[in-house]
Amino acid sequence: MEATTEARVPQKLTSKGRATRARILEHAAELIYTKGVHATNNEQLRRAAGVSGSQLNHYFPTKESLVLAVIEWQAERVLAFHRSERFAHFESLDSLREWAGFYIAYEHSYREGCTLGSLASEIIKTDLDVRADLANAFEQWKDLFRDGLERMQRLGRISAEADPARLAHLLLSAFQGGMLLAQVARDITPLEDALRAAIDHVQTFAVLPAADAPEDR
Amino acid sequence: MEATTEARVPQKLTSKGRATRARILEHAAELIYTKGVHATNNEQLRRAAGVSGSQLNHYFPTKESLVLAVIEWQAERVLAFHRSERFAHFESLDSLREWAGFYIAYEHSYREGCTLGSLASEIIKTDLDVRADLANAFEQWKDLFRDGLERMQRLGRISAEADPARLAHLLLSAFQGGMLLAQVARDITPLEDALRAAIDHVQTFAVLPAADAPEDR
Repeated sequence: MEATTEARVPQKLTSKGRATRARILEHAAELIYTKGVHATNNEQLRRAAGVSGSQLNHYFPTKESLVLAVIEWQAERVLAFHRSERFAHFESLDSLREWAGFYIAYEHSYREGCTLGSLASEIIKTDLDVRADLANAFEQWKDLFRDGLERMQRLGRISAEADPARLAHLLLSAFQGGMLLAQVARDITPLEDALRAAIDHVQTFAVLPAADAPEDR
Repeated sequence: MEATTEARVPQKLTSKGRATRARILEHAAELIYTKGVHATNNEQLRRAAGVSGSQLNHYFPTKESLVLAVIEWQAERVLAFHRSERFAHFESLDSLREWAGFYIAYEHSYREGCTLGSLASEIIKTDLDVRADLANAFEQWKDLFRDGLERMQRLGRISAEADPARLAHLLLSAFQGGMLLAQVARDITPLEDALRAAIDHVQTFAVLPAADAPEDR
């Protein structure tokens, strides 16, 4: 994703120009996350980022260009977070539980939902030409889980009968659906239940480590 | 839900008035489902339903009143569909598979997503005062699965160790999240994987019927 975004930032920008663009983008992402795409207008954004209308127009001439940049910004953040050491490439059930625990304890989960999923849901039916970018981001996200599950198989931690692609779709769907239900209910329980049950399902494929195997007792 | 909606239809409406209101509502639901809330305007709705601006204003004086009525209309339809004989109160794994199979084969799934979930996602961050109505609808929906799973337990079809509320949240979250991912990818696979894996998980709690139990062989 980094390479893609870099490519989209006009190469002629000075370092000051890049900093201004980044500041606008950060405020746009924050406004869109808390208020939604439709309620975010240029005036709010200009005030929040401390830029003029012509500056805003220079970096993001259309709402589509702004929304597209925010999608990339949020996608990079969510993918970088999932790739962080904290989750150890999702090579174990414990790393999946660590991941679920983070979002269950995260107060924004049931207030504003997923930074990327809530934005996707809000605009998927609009005329904004952003579907391919969203699809690419979710595909990469799903692949992080799939790759982790495949490694768990190679390491003998889960059975060869598990279908990593199917389980990865279960994990990401439970996350996105649980986030929506938690937001609507203003209660984290739907997300907590969905994530714990999805991980319980991965666990049904767990292979006992040799030390715990019945034949060693 | 029926009782609630009836109560909201002004009692003084004549049968002709009720028919006009119902026609507007049906077209509003259709427009909102295909184009989204924000892209649906009064002029399109007037043309689609064949009513005047003053008629529209008479039945739905504000966009909030219209969106609220559409939420109730979609919630009634989705709940009635889930309560239909086809799914036999979700008292068996087969009924859950029948349900998943319907949505996996339903072409609107990956085009417009869930009639209620896509609407909820689009407006949950707006100022429209509709959250309680949405929460009520999703709660009833989740309870249909929970009640079915509880009956499966009483009938000895699934183990007492299963947590019906948690599994119900998994099923509804996998459905909502899978619908979003399928829409974004324009491919049914994420929904299919998520639903099949969620039902596979319910199946891990299945108790063998007496005829199939090992001791009877």
